[in-house]
Amino acid sequence: MYSFNPWKHFHKEPFGAVRNNESMKVRFTAEGDVAVKLVMHRDFGARHEFEMIKVDDTTFETTVLFDHGRALYFYYFEIVEKSDWGGRRLYYSASMLGGEGYIVEEMNQIRHFQLTVYEGNDATPDWYRNSVFYQIFPDRFYNGNTDGHVNSPKANSFLYAQETDSPFYIKDMKSGEIARWDFYGGNIKGITAKISYLKELGVTAIYLNPIFLSKSNHRYDTMDYLRIDPMLGTEADFRELVDCLHENEMHIILDGVFSHVGDDSEYFNRFGNFGVNVGAAQSQESPYYEWFKFTDWPREYKSWWGFKNMPEVDKNNPAFQQFIYGNDNSVLSKWNEFGVDGWRLDVADELPDSFIRGIRKRLAGIDDQKILIGEVWEDASNKLAYDQRRDYILGDALQGVMNYPLRDLIINYVCGNIQANEVAHQLMILRENYPKEIFYGNLNNIGTHDSERILTMVGDDNMDIAIGMMFVMPGVPTIYYGDEAGMTGRKDPANRKFFPWNDIHEPFYTLYHYWAHERLANDALKTGNFNVGYVGNTLAILRQGKEASYLYLANPKEQAVLIKPDQIKFLRDHEFDIELSNMKELKVPAKYSLFTKINK
Amino acid sequence: MYSFNPWKHFHKEPFGAVRNNESMKVRFTAEGDVAVKLVMHRDFGARHEFEMIKVDDTTFETTVLFDHGRALYFYYFEIVEKSDWGGRRLYYSASMLGGEGYIVEEMNQIRHFQLTVYEGNDATPDWYRNSVFYQIFPDRFYNGNTDGHVNSPKANSFLYAQETDSPFYIKDMKSGEIARWDFYGGNIKGITAKISYLKELGVTAIYLNPIFLSKSNHRYDTMDYLRIDPMLGTEADFRELVDCLHENEMHIILDGVFSHVGDDSEYFNRFGNFGVNVGAAQSQESPYYEWFKFTDWPREYKSWWGFKNMPEVDKNNPAFQQFIYGNDNSVLSKWNEFGVDGWRLDVADELPDSFIRGIRKRLAGIDDQKILIGEVWEDASNKLAYDQRRDYILGDALQGVMNYPLRDLIINYVCGNIQANEVAHQLMILRENYPKEIFYGNLNNIGTHDSERILTMVGDDNMDIAIGMMFVMPGVPTIYYGDEAGMTGRKDPANRKFFPWNDIHEPFYTLYHYWAHERLANDALKTGNFNVGYVGNTLAILRQGKEASYLYLANPKEQAVLIKPDQIKFLRDHEFDIELSNMKELKVPAKYSLFTKINK
Repeated sequence: MYSFNPWKHFHKEPFGAVRNNESMKVRFTAEGDVAVKLVMHRDFGARHEFEMIKVDDTTFETTVLFDHGRALYFYYFEIVEKSDWGGRRLYYSASMLGGEGYIVEEMNQIRHFQLTVYEGNDATPDWYRNSVFYQIFPDRFYNGNTDGHVNSPKANSFLYAQETDSPFYIKDMKSGEIARWDFYGGNIKGITAKISYLKELGVTAIYLNPIFLSKSNHRYDTMDYLRIDPMLGTEADFRELVDCLHENEMHIILDGVFSHVGDDSEYFNRFGNFGVNVGAAQSQESPYYEWFKFTDWPREYKSWWGFKNMPEVDKNNPAFQQFIYGNDNSVLSKWNEFGVDGWRLDVADELPDSFIRGIRKRLAGIDDQKILIGEVWEDASNKLAYDQRRDYILGDALQGVMNYPLRDLIINYVCGNIQANEVAHQLMILRENYPKEIFYGNLNNIGTHDSERILTMVGDDNMDIAIGMMFVMPGVPTIYYGDEAGMTGRKDPANRKFFPWNDIHEPFYTLYHYWAHERLANDALKTGNFNVGYVGNTLAILRQGKEASYLYLANPKEQAVLIKPDQIKFLRDHEFDIELSNMKELKVPAKYSLFTKINK
Repeated sequence: MYSFNPWKHFHKEPFGAVRNNESMKVRFTAEGDVAVKLVMHRDFGARHEFEMIKVDDTTFETTVLFDHGRALYFYYFEIVEKSDWGGRRLYYSASMLGGEGYIVEEMNQIRHFQLTVYEGNDATPDWYRNSVFYQIFPDRFYNGNTDGHVNSPKANSFLYAQETDSPFYIKDMKSGEIARWDFYGGNIKGITAKISYLKELGVTAIYLNPIFLSKSNHRYDTMDYLRIDPMLGTEADFRELVDCLHENEMHIILDGVFSHVGDDSEYFNRFGNFGVNVGAAQSQESPYYEWFKFTDWPREYKSWWGFKNMPEVDKNNPAFQQFIYGNDNSVLSKWNEFGVDGWRLDVADELPDSFIRGIRKRLAGIDDQKILIGEVWEDASNKLAYDQRRDYILGDALQGVMNYPLRDLIINYVCGNIQANEVAHQLMILRENYPKEIFYGNLNNIGTHDSERILTMVGDDNMDIAIGMMFVMPGVPTIYYGDEAGMTGRKDPANRKFFPWNDIHEPFYTLYHYWAHERLANDALKTGNFNVGYVGNTLAILRQGKEASYLYLANPKEQAVLIKPDQIKFLRDHEFDIELSNMKELKVPAKYSLFTKINK
């Protein structure tokens, strides 16, 4: 009797997010003698009502222009049923699953539809959008020294005796804190040496975990942003890596860890180990003193999650901003000179939007081929961080985020925790909430240095679907080093084992190889339109490219299923017409997926 | 009125321990009309009384022949004062400090004099008695690989990043047990490379901590007694070391760890890592099954101090004895073939005396140049271990023990905990209780891998006396690797740092160098008779050689002292006449010692 589904062309144009200075047209379906209002508020703003115009027997319509800049908007519908006795007021609420909503009678039952309004140009460069990424935790990948020696081992640290040893945190028995850092000795030369391996696998870009001088093996505790950690190699090694990648038409992005530094660093210098300048913990006259927030100098200061070894930096400090992304002598300018193609911002939630925009502006000022991605663990379109709504994906800031929600959906789906119906809806919600460029710019992953290995999470049987889904979804697929080799492990440090060069698991390698090359060759996977649907517990993803359309079907069940494509319930209208009804029935084996071209 | 002091020639002949089939003559001094009995019992045996004969006004005498083999005997004197009314019975008890005793009136107040009766020949070979030893913990001494690589690192172990790192136990946070073993990578080639260093220092023999295949860095958890641990090198490396030492007229003894083996070993093979034979934990048909005491095979078994990773071996098992010291294919025969000059038996208290004698017999059967020393922490003459009196220094077993009581006395003396008077008495008690060959065969030390570094215990100021006393005392001085370099550290693992080859502390090196060379050149220090005395808090040690006598004076006070040698109160009669009265007054500086030849 009442109906609104923002995923349907009839109900809402355009689909999903709206660019600033553009309009949204909505059509509400209602039978009977009713009046319908669109009730909308800008995020944290006042409520506005838009009287909808009845354009035919059952259709109410209105168009709203958004011209107040980037923001989230939230809306629902108010219906007044006219009657002799008086009007009955009803509300049309969004559903938790997205898509079609439903009537509620109490205001406090209303769930809002989200509308994302963005501005600016976040189109990613072709090289990026077309990439297959590979994430490397550099200590754990490959040691490029021919005699296997470890470069410049750090004082009071330990080296693993063998690369096949499993990672182990060496802790102090009393405090439980890391007592000594543990290293395998992978290095930059090792990555360069493996470029041919990566190229053969189908990789075209590398995301490198931090490489600057640090105390730890993860190097998120920067000592000096301007020095390559000598355990990883020299600037010459890094230049060789970047040059070699570029010669192979491959790209590289670095991990930008700008929220905090190490206490044992050039800047904070708590232990006096650094000498060029005086550190903030050494003197209040230090050029870095203003970077930090001391509550009781020098002992008490704001630090990342309370870890005293990672003093937090005031990202609003102009000198710090200048140091990180100024035109001259800045961190960005130095590594840009080496040819770095972009950055992944660590803990983007800890960085003010203005700081992120400063970095983006600086990158854009270099050329339009640089990329800026952020670490965000949730739906980044409506993330509240520290009671602030973040607008880092609403334009001129991040061009994508690490797509952890996709990973969660894939794992829960193949493990049987949720059904295809819900997966399809959740995927469509992401597509709807994100500006399209962002959705296509996300770094898709099914595992990173911060999460459990995908194989450990889903088991051998489910790897086919897990890998396939990541590659079929819009976004840039990222292989976490060694997932293709069959590496296992729960969270840190088990997810950071050394790459098993002598024991690469052939079936997984073959799967990743297949999908990487498919993606490189297939424009529909890179830029094709996206629709998603389901039939039974079979998930269907449709990618419609200019040349051809492709259907991906995943069957996580223990039995094979027969799918008639025209029975798939897709959640939105297809971008281009396709004819599924004349396709023959497809058999999807148990725990398996099909990827098939649709004949026009 | 009553007097007996076994340290005086007048009162007791011979001094100290008595050889079996020899006699002890004692003279008791008593005034008045009394009868005196010598009351004696063999250890755990029945009491015997010997009526003493009055040979002059105040002297009572008796001679006792000991012809029942090696044992301890304990005695005191019973005096009956005759009077008109009836006799009064008194007892003459030993003093806790040794030497002169005193009268007590109640039997339960009696402290016995100890008499040690030994048999067999424990004379040590000249090379041994004349040695200056150097103890090496092989992982921590020197890496002889020219490129500094570590030989064959063990799976699931850690290597220190730098040799200057301080040692650290890598433990499991829950169990508190070692999770991974830590290695620096010192090796046998490294010892060979440093022979010239050792020779220059004045070292003529090496005691090597265990070198056989093991899991740990200390290698007291033997995996295979017949294999050199590959981290330490090859059999060829070891042969080169032994040959090279012998070419330099130096000797080497190994650590014999026969009380227990590793659970992860050829013999127990709990984890199935070994393959030649089936291990005791794998099958009850294993040739090693009888070596162990299983209470519930294969999970429950007797282990060393309850450490499940060190299953205890039944040393009474003939097959085990044959394996360790049989004529053919035994551990001893294998390493004897390499030219090993002797063994230090780990935890001798855990080895039955018969097992130790078996080893000794085997060594003696090879030639009279082999040496057998035991690890005992206390006065080994009267040690009760597991409610059994040990007779391992009473002949045909050990030829000496590690002289830990000496170390304790030195530390307590220089640190001011005890005075020269008490030190002198305690030293004399050791001399008295031990058979002379044993006392001169003890491995003197002021620090080992199992104790705190001497420098840490006594501080810079007291090193002169600490080192001097060790070298001046009878016994074979042993330098714990790096003590001469100024190494510090409390107990394990801090006492096992890597040798600081680039930071050798010159003053201590000079002191050790002086004493080592003095000892090598000076027969009085090697074999000279021993007397000890004191004046004030100055300790005096007298060594009377055939050619010359030497006086050592130690002044632990903060002020210099002036000592007139004829005022020294020596605790026993001098062996040869010396004339101290015409010596001029000697000035001993604060915290310093003098070592001076006595003109005849």
